[in-house]
Amino acid sequence: MDKIKVLGISGSLRADSFNTALLKSAIELSKEYLNIDIYDISRIPLYNHDHEKKGIPESVIEFKSAIASSDSLLFALPEYNSSVTGVLKNAIDWASRAESPLNGKPCAIMGASGGLSGTAVAQSHFRQIASSVNLICMNVPKLQLRKSKSLFDENNILTDQSTLEHLDKFLKAFREWTLNFINTKN
Amino acid sequence: MDKIKVLGISGSLRADSFNTALLKSAIELSKEYLNIDIYDISRIPLYNHDHEKKGIPESVIEFKSAIASSDSLLFALPEYNSSVTGVLKNAIDWASRAESPLNGKPCAIMGASGGLSGTAVAQSHFRQIASSVNLICMNVPKLQLRKSKSLFDENNILTDQSTLEHLDKFLKAFREWTLNFINTKN
Repeated sequence: MDKIKVLGISGSLRADSFNTALLKSAIELSKEYLNIDIYDISRIPLYNHDHEKKGIPESVIEFKSAIASSDSLLFALPEYNSSVTGVLKNAIDWASRAESPLNGKPCAIMGASGGLSGTAVAQSHFRQIASSVNLICMNVPKLQLRKSKSLFDENNILTDQSTLEHLDKFLKAFREWTLNFINTKN
Repeated sequence: MDKIKVLGISGSLRADSFNTALLKSAIELSKEYLNIDIYDISRIPLYNHDHEKKGIPESVIEFKSAIASSDSLLFALPEYNSSVTGVLKNAIDWASRAESPLNGKPCAIMGASGGLSGTAVAQSHFRQIASSVNLICMNVPKLQLRKSKSLFDENNILTDQSTLEHLDKFLKAFREWTLNFINTKN
């Protein structure tokens, strides 16, 4: 069968973001069985219902179409101020509107923090948001990286061996998770 | 003494938002003892650490300065997808950065929903975010309006009598809450 088509979404717009780097490592590690494309959400404007009524912005149409044509979504979520980033939530707010491509879509979440939180609170908030828009989140394994600076090398490539092993396990579980829903459709 | 200076922030950018309308009703109801200015957060760009390093955007400098020169903040929070709006979270993410004017600032939160949620989940998420940035939130009374369409008239003015009485109680408590922190400073 064809490789599973995954849309990777990072909640950080920073070029050197650990979360974007984590997505890049996931692409490398799973290239035999997942086809992960990273979607850049930096062009999605602030959600305003009045603008939506005048016409959905091109960048939002593109984003929704990229979601719709993927088998599943892989989120890399930084934690800002004990929640998901405003940037990521804003993208979800747009995507969730009329004919939401999020509805019924399988997803998984992972996160990397510089400190000790491991983005646990952001993941908890995200799970509530996900349930509200009917994204179907994989529960386990969890992937919450702490002290990320020690796990990535100077080129922002994940090199920590035990983390790579855990990411591999996570991605294989995510493949199975996605297949559940693809098979249901066929 | 001078009237207490309050910055009112709506989490919705929609012109006819119930939450913005609620702020306007609060201005009218408390004009003898609060001086509430509504701050429009629509010009704040998506947070990007790389842009921040190049220079903080003018709109963010203005927003932070408006927060810093206020005695307290009054948030009107819609609930989108079981959380605060991405737009509001994004504004908080910017304001919380270096020399955060949110640090130690008293605030109160209110919210209006079209349905039955009363924005309770968004308020719960906001309290976690607020504690993270050391905004000092008033706990009670709560203000969570349900079925807002029945409470506002055709010009989007709050006309429901029992809601007006509750809002009056809420705003007087908010005045006392703010005074606690002003008096501490003097």
